[in-house]
Amino acid sequence: MNEIGSLVNQGLEQSIPGDWSIPSSLREAMHYSLLAGGKRIRPLLVIAAAESMGGSREAALPVACAVEMVHTYSLIHDDLPAMDNDDFRRGKPTNHKVFGEATAILAGDGLLTHAFYSITEASRKFHVPAEQTLAIVEELSVYAGPKGMVGGQAADMEGEQGITDLEQLKYIHIHKTGDLIVFSLKAGGRIASASQEQLRALETFGRSIGLAFQIQDDILDLIGNEQKLGKKTQSDVAMNKVTYPYFIGLDESKAEVDRLTKLAKEAVSGGVIPNPERLLQIAEFLLNRDH
Amino acid sequence: MNEIGSLVNQGLEQSIPGDWSIPSSLREAMHYSLLAGGKRIRPLLVIAAAESMGGSREAALPVACAVEMVHTYSLIHDDLPAMDNDDFRRGKPTNHKVFGEATAILAGDGLLTHAFYSITEASRKFHVPAEQTLAIVEELSVYAGPKGMVGGQAADMEGEQGITDLEQLKYIHIHKTGDLIVFSLKAGGRIASASQEQLRALETFGRSIGLAFQIQDDILDLIGNEQKLGKKTQSDVAMNKVTYPYFIGLDESKAEVDRLTKLAKEAVSGGVIPNPERLLQIAEFLLNRDH
Repeated sequence: MNEIGSLVNQGLEQSIPGDWSIPSSLREAMHYSLLAGGKRIRPLLVIAAAESMGGSREAALPVACAVEMVHTYSLIHDDLPAMDNDDFRRGKPTNHKVFGEATAILAGDGLLTHAFYSITEASRKFHVPAEQTLAIVEELSVYAGPKGMVGGQAADMEGEQGITDLEQLKYIHIHKTGDLIVFSLKAGGRIASASQEQLRALETFGRSIGLAFQIQDDILDLIGNEQKLGKKTQSDVAMNKVTYPYFIGLDESKAEVDRLTKLAKEAVSGGVIPNPERLLQIAEFLLNRDH
Repeated sequence: MNEIGSLVNQGLEQSIPGDWSIPSSLREAMHYSLLAGGKRIRPLLVIAAAESMGGSREAALPVACAVEMVHTYSLIHDDLPAMDNDDFRRGKPTNHKVFGEATAILAGDGLLTHAFYSITEASRKFHVPAEQTLAIVEELSVYAGPKGMVGGQAADMEGEQGITDLEQLKYIHIHKTGDLIVFSLKAGGRIASASQEQLRALETFGRSIGLAFQIQDDILDLIGNEQKLGKKTQSDVAMNKVTYPYFIGLDESKAEVDRLTKLAKEAVSGGVIPNPERLLQIAEFLLNRDH
């Protein structure tokens, strides 16, 4: 996983070439957040899904970088004063704290747009069929767009007025976080020319670990400690945000994470996916993380 | 032109289907700005370029809508308090004035992402070859991204500290406005399977009218009147923004618009483009507009 992490960092570093004549503030702001660390879970999932199907890591890398660009843009915009108004992210000052709000908005816009460029690279350089690449573009626009991540974020903002039931919270989790995870798995599969059945297995895997991941976040936020998380804990409680444990309790939430993780593992280990080992490892890793 | 305008409005209206289960604030905010009027110049250019090559209007329409979504997102984000802080746009309150900053940011993000979906539709529904559609996706990501429109916008923000020469101003004009116009023409050409030579002609046409359009804007801002423009005139002067007339004077600016318009017309009327009439009309229209 560390090896893939290094590859992704390299890819992200090179994704905005030094010879581009663009305003320095924009370049620095995009670089700052792209290379601010993070677990690189989504790129890892793209590559793991491609490799689970016998696909090439090289061809998966530009798509892995694209999904991290989208994730990074969403964090930059989420942190803005008009949204969550966060001063720190991954232990560092947030983008707008360093570069100002205007540049942070533009850095986010730039990363989102550039992500689509990165995907087309996979097709051009590594001979992923145009039809598959186009399907990846379409799915990114759906899973990251109004019906997907942006919709989840909007629901989250609306929810600050008060989330009344678990369904509403689930909608937020599924779209705000889960959709980009599902995208990552399906895109990895598509790079390796996955069949419809295989794409469905990867989708179930992604949907399940995506929700498990988010419930786990809710749990960690309750029981984690400030140092390990690198951000203020119980911030959700302080902000009056309701979470999974709020609705169904801590034990039930843990049981739900276990149930979803089992579901995820079953989806990819029934024989449909040729080499599911790395995917299973990641599911295990996400379940057992303490930060 | 009115007929195409209606088609585009219809396409934009339907681009966010009523059966999508998305937060109502997001839907309303996207609709509000998409359907707030405007000249629809970019969609018109996509369709005119496609038709100048004998391409189908139906296949061009989703791409025309996509480019208007990108244009609209850029206006929503430009108007934000952290950017130009505008209260009115096309005579109506700006998006963030109606829906709040958070929703306006998300509406912009949603429209930008959804634009890429709209492009993939052209391929799926109207059998535009996947390779051409992928090239359109790639070019949108370049012309609207960090090297293109977003870069131009960032340069414009940096320029508020003071633009020192015409080259810097030209960079802003070319990227902030011109790039999306060039994209519109090339995308229209690609829908009709334009050759490299034809794409170059459309690019020259787009580059020239794009810059002419912007210089004309600078001129109109100096001599226009408040009612016709529907926004505060001389706002650029009031904001200490330097414009073309500032550097080379009003007469020279007008001469430059004429020169660029001539260049644009020549590029498409030499026989390379089968039916350039509509394109020539548009160039004429842009040159002679008074708002």
